[in-house]
Parts: sequence; structure tokens; C-alpha cells
Amino acid sequence: MTGGNGHRGQVHELPRVVIVGAGFAGLAAARVLAGRPIDTTVVDQHNFHTFQPLLYQVATAGLEPADVAYPVRAIFGREPNVSFRCGRVDAVDLDGRRVQLEDGSALPYDYLVLATGAAANFFGISGAARFAEPLYTVRDARRLRNHLLSTLESVDAHPDRYRGGAPVFVVVGGGPTGVETAGALVELIAVSVRRDRLRIDPDRTRVILVDVAPRLLSGFSETAGRYAADTLRGRGVEIHLGERVAEVAAGGVRLADGTTLPADVVVWAGGVTVAGTLADSLPVAQARGGRVVVGPDLSVPGRPEVFVVGDAAAAPLGRGRQGTAPQLAQGAIQTGRHAGQEVLRRVEGEAGAPFAYRDKGVMATIGRHAAVAEVPRLPTVRGTLGWLAWLALHLVYLIGFRNRLVVLLNWTWRYFDWPSGPRLIVADVESETST
Amino acid sequence: MTGGNGHRGQVHELPRVVIVGAGFAGLAAARVLAGRPIDTTVVDQHNFHTFQPLLYQVATAGLEPADVAYPVRAIFGREPNVSFRCGRVDAVDLDGRRVQLEDGSALPYDYLVLATGAAANFFGISGAARFAEPLYTVRDARRLRNHLLSTLESVDAHPDRYRGGAPVFVVVGGGPTGVETAGALVELIAVSVRRDRLRIDPDRTRVILVDVAPRLLSGFSETAGRYAADTLRGRGVEIHLGERVAEVAAGGVRLADGTTLPADVVVWAGGVTVAGTLADSLPVAQARGGRVVVGPDLSVPGRPEVFVVGDAAAAPLGRGRQGTAPQLAQGAIQTGRHAGQEVLRRVEGEAGAPFAYRDKGVMATIGRHAAVAEVPRLPTVRGTLGWLAWLALHLVYLIGFRNRLVVLLNWTWRYFDWPSGPRLIVADVESETST
Repeated sequence: MTGGNGHRGQVHELPRVVIVGAGFAGLAAARVLAGRPIDTTVVDQHNFHTFQPLLYQVATAGLEPADVAYPVRAIFGREPNVSFRCGRVDAVDLDGRRVQLEDGSALPYDYLVLATGAAANFFGISGAARFAEPLYTVRDARRLRNHLLSTLESVDAHPDRYRGGAPVFVVVGGGPTGVETAGALVELIAVSVRRDRLRIDPDRTRVILVDVAPRLLSGFSETAGRYAADTLRGRGVEIHLGERVAEVAAGGVRLADGTTLPADVVVWAGGVTVAGTLADSLPVAQARGGRVVVGPDLSVPGRPEVFVVGDAAAAPLGRGRQGTAPQLAQGAIQTGRHAGQEVLRRVEGEAGAPFAYRDKGVMATIGRHAAVAEVPRLPTVRGTLGWLAWLALHLVYLIGFRNRLVVLLNWTWRYFDWPSGPRLIVADVESETST
Repeated sequence: MTGGNGHRGQVHELPRVVIVGAGFAGLAAARVLAGRPIDTTVVDQHNFHTFQPLLYQVATAGLEPADVAYPVRAIFGREPNVSFRCGRVDAVDLDGRRVQLEDGSALPYDYLVLATGAAANFFGISGAARFAEPLYTVRDARRLRNHLLSTLESVDAHPDRYRGGAPVFVVVGGGPTGVETAGALVELIAVSVRRDRLRIDPDRTRVILVDVAPRLLSGFSETAGRYAADTLRGRGVEIHLGERVAEVAAGGVRLADGTTLPADVVVWAGGVTVAGTLADSLPVAQARGGRVVVGPDLSVPGRPEVFVVGDAAAAPLGRGRQGTAPQLAQGAIQTGRHAGQEVLRRVEGEAGAPFAYRDKGVMATIGRHAAVAEVPRLPTVRGTLGWLAWLALHLVYLIGFRNRLVVLLNWTWRYFDWPSGPRLIVADVESETST
């Protein structure tokens, strides 16, 4: 019925760019094109951008979902050449240069930027997809929070069902997400007991972090990994390193060495793979984790008008360096921006340029007054200073002034004793909507 | 296994009060008992109190769910004699003086305050429960918002499916909720077009308000009803008064006179009945709308230790006046407070006192710079002044300082041009959680 309504009447003759995905990579590409004589359409199944680095705070009840999500239309509200289409992409017709949407319509393009992101990788581990909870979308974060808070309420009501008031939380994965979640969980439990007077035995409640790697934060220095482990242990987290998870079941996690850990909630921060099935459907080579192999300029080999960026791409580091850009916000932002610039260059008939990743460092927070930041050519920053640096950086990067202010307000509040306590369980919304 | 764990060890010998429901009425009762030598337990299926008067703003994307919901544990965090139990009440054993929870446990009581609230009344109208959306809980508000925002996105993507970009919204009910929702809908549509550049034809988009009564705001003066109707009409709302809804179907509403109105979304603000089945299960007389008939002191006849308050009760106005307390926040607060005071009097061996409703007036907002407030013995306040009075009153009544500040911030923001636009569609969270 509607075949190709992606471009608006007034900009008919302009080159059409479709960007699939409104994560860090897609938005970075769109920002380069904003204000240019290019008809740009951002497509996403959600009407909002998700600030993924803070999802763990939504999951542990420190922030609200709206604090880390921002409507895409609001971001480009003053950019008439950037429009938004809320919808799910089904397939790409590379020869016909059209993106097929699930609702039956299609968006024609002259240039395509695929920024479809990543999803949790369960590595085929038995029971993981069913019983462990990932932390990659607002929906994941809401679901995990509901599970955590209702488990705490349930311990209060029925301590006998939880080893006499001592729940067990297992976090699988020792990267930044796992470390941050474990640290935040310890704080959530403490405040539940202290402020909300939940009848939980804090001394016997366990937070367990498991990773197959021999140390935490493998993207960081050895020292940073040791600092994170020491800090978490000092706050009561049990750390099992070099241990592979063999199975996740209701109520427990079995390790490869045969050990069984009890678990009332299992958080999955164990790794990522490419999201959705779009990459699989394209005639392109895929690297580890399903990432699309792209050329030096981030375009798909043989398709100079198609770019793959962000977590969905295996983007070469460039400048002769071996390896691919990391699946972090910086990788997404830099590859997205490069694809936008390549489109501009092609439209203007200029020669393309190869992508070169610039390492801006890594950062992870372990909790109050404890974070680690490693920036190239600067000394490692740890402890309170690292934590303040982490706060400042995340505020600066948060999209939209309203969010920044509200998050700052929420953080300040929480810092001064978390007066409103762990927040709403909204599970009813999720479990009763089959009607 | 756990038979009666409602009272904590340290206050064993104190009289035990169970309050079912954490709405305005339940909280008002608990506040009277806070700090007194009484073991008080508030039970609610949600871990939060809902500020119902602002739900329509959540539904129309002006506020976030967390802005109008506040964790019950946080409210009584510093009151050691008030505890909270998150759970659903199944039944009351009046002879055994025990409240049965759905999870199999029971809470014994010496005094019981039932404040279970109201739910939408569909009056048995065909299709209403299925196709019309009420606005009585946070879940309702979230669901309605998702439906409204995704309808607007859908109009943008497929204008041909909506009469060439002209959706129709029908609001059933001309009380405060209906009037406020219709007014807010007009603003939502305007900002969607102006700020978010959605391809909607504002001149042909219809917001229709239907009520069986001959005028709007029947709890207010004739003048107030006329003012609301004139203001809404001036802002483009079509008003059908004296018309009964005969049927709600997918895509339309049929009136009793045979007229059929097209409708992409139908909001149900048509009246309330008692929530849940608890009242039906008790051997008590019920008044119109299922409300429990209570004595002058708000206790159940023959059960001086059981009180019913708030929307669940048909509470006599008192002082010889005919009629019952209105199903508004003031009715709930005043009856809840009275029940708390009666419990105190009984515990202290004092004589009971009859309830007397004090009319503090009524208030409704129609949108920016337009509200009406009628307070006994004061002149009616309308327009900008009424709107400012409405803002101030709602801020004062909002529970918890954090919420008050965030709501004020959101309102101020929105007043100065709604920079973030209509907010997140979180429908994905709701429709895909069967896993």
C-alpha cells in the first residue's frame, strides 16, 4: 500500500540516507548528517535512544528508565533534514536499495548505515537464556529490577524460603557491566536493610561474581583488575575467577568444575553477540560474535553505499594496527561518526578515508567512591577521584539536558542516604498484560 | 509454614492493626497510627503508593510513572511501628481476625482497616472493558500512554490508514478525569506536530468527549461545567453531552442514539466501582457501585474492629446530612484518618466519634492556564489563577520531597516548550514479556 514513504516531499531530489538503529553509533552518524543537504531517516523499533552504560543503575533501582532513555525525535527536533521512523527492520534489499520494514512498508536509500547493535551472548550454555537475565535494553533493566526488588520483598515476607532471610545473587561476567552490577547490588541490599527495614540478614546474603577469565576487567590493566577484585571483596562480593558456567537452572548455577552455587537471581553480563537477524541475512562475512566484516572505510565489501557500524561491525582499528574496535560506547560513536563522514564525502565526490580508532581509555565504577579510569598516556585514576571522573563523564555524555539534570538530582539524592529507598516494582505491568 | 508473621518480635504485646491498601485512605490511617504504641502493617499488592490525580499526565506523556508513584517503605522509613507487606489479599477471616494473603500466609489483627479503592466501572457496556482504556492505576496510565504514542507514530508512518493523517481520540466521561485527559490530549497532539514533526493533520485530528450527563463536571457548579465545556471547545475538543455509549468496538464507539464515532483510541473515564472482590466476599451490605455500607464511625455493622474507608466505602457525610462522602482524594484522606483515630480511641478505651465529611472543594484542570477551583465560601477561581492554584495544591499534596521536586521540574520544562517532546513508548516492555 505504502511503497517507499521514507522521504518527505520537500527534499525529494536530495540523496537519501537511512540509518538503522538509534544507539550510540546510529546517532553519531545522524549527527554528522544533520544540517547537511541530505534526506536522513533514522529507523528504530523504539522511539528512544538508550544510554546503555547506565542500565545497570536502572536494574539496581538507582535510576528510573526515563533517566537513561531519550526520545529520538527530541534529539533531532531542530534538524529538518533528519526524520525518525519508529519501526522494526525486517530485511535489506541490497540490489533494490530498500530497507523493508516489518509493517510492510519500505524505505529507499542511496546510502545505508546499519547500526543494529549487540545483544547478550549466552554461548549456548544450558538454561542461561531462560534463567539468567541480561542487561542490554531498557526492557532488560526493568525486568531485572522487578525481579531483584520482588525477591527482596519476598525474602522479607518469607525468610524461611531463603535460607532464613539470606538470598543469593549471582552475576556472570567480570567485565565492566558485571563489576558495576555486583557493586550496585551490594549497595541495594544494604539500603534495603537500613532504610527500608526489610528483614534480610545482610551478613549471610551473598553476591557472587563468576567469570571464566583469570581476572576481572580484562579490557583494563592487571592493576585495575586487581583493584576491582579487592574493592568488591572488601564490600562482601564473592569472586570466582577462571570458572566456566556449565548450566543455569531455576535456583542455581552449576560451574564446569561441578560446584553448584545457589542463586535466587542470576544476572547475565557474560558477553555480547550481534543483535537480531539482520546481519545473518546479508551476504557478508561475519567475524567472532556475528559481527559484520567491513572494509577500512567501514563499508561492506562490494557495496560502497552500505556501512555497518557500532557493535554490529568488526571494524578494523586502522593505521596498520591488528584487531577490531572494541564493543564499547567509544567504538560505536567513532565508527558511526566515520560512516556519516564517508557518506558526506561520497555525496560531495571526495575520496574516502580509512577509519582509525582512537583509544580514549576505559572506565568502570565499582560503587560509591570506587571507580577506575585508564586513559592512554595518563596515570590510572582510582578510588574517589576515579568515581568523580566517572560521574562527570557520564553526565557529560548523557543525551539531553533534562536527563542530565534529573540524573544528577537522582544521584545527589541517593548519595545523601537514598531517602526514597529502592524504588517501584513495576512487575504487575509486565506480568498481566496478556489482555 | 508461615502462619501469621505479620507482627515483629519486639512489639508482640501491642495491639495489631492491618491496613489493606496503600492509597490515600490507607496511608491516611497509617499516618495517624505512626509513632503510637500500635503494631501497624500496611499491605498492598504494589510496593508503591499511586498519586492518582496525576495519572492522566502520565498517560499523556507529561510525567513519568515514577513521578506519581512513591515506595510505601520510604514513606514509613522512620516509623518503626509501621511495617509494609507487599502482597495481594485473598480473603478476610472476620471471626478468626486474620487477613489471608494470596501467597498462603496470614496476618492476624486486632483492628482491620480496609482501603482497597476503586476500579473503572464499565457498566456492562458491550466492548468497553475490551476496547476502552481506563486510567486508574500506574499500569493503566502506562498502557494508555503506549497506545497513544504508538498510535501517533503509526499515523506518521501510515497516514493513509488514519483518514489521511487524522486520528480520532474518544474520551468517555465528563468528570474531572475525562475533562483533564481531553485537555491534555489536545496539548499532546499539538506538541507532537510542532516539536516532534509528526505528520499529523492537526486541523482534522479529532478529540471527542462523550458523557451521558447533560453537562460536564457534575460535581461542580453549573458555571464551572460551562467554563470547562467552553474552554475545551475553544481548544478544539468536540463535546457530546446527554449521550449514552451503547457499545465500544475496535475502531469505533456507538452511541445509544445510533450515531457511530470513529475511534483509534478510547479512554474510559466513565465512572468507578469497588476494586477487586474483597468487598463482595464479606457479609456486608453494599451500596451503589459495590461500596460497603458502614456505620457512622465507618466500622462495619456488628464488627466494631473492622473499618472500611476510601473509595471502597459508602461513608455517611455525617452531621445529619444526607448522602455519602465523594469518591475523591479528600473523601479517602478524611475517612482513612477517621478510621485511624477510631482505632486509637478504641485502644485507649475512649468512646468512638461519628465521621463528618468536611467539604474542601473541588478542582479540575483543563490544560495550560485553564483550571477551575470551587472552595466553599470562596469565589470560584478560573483560568490562569485556577491553574496556578491547581499546580500549587498538587505539588503540596504529592507525597515525598523527591517526587515534588521532579514533578515541578518536569512541569516547568514542559511549560517552556516541552523540549524533550512526548516521551518514551515502553510498549515493548509490555507486549513481549511472556517469556
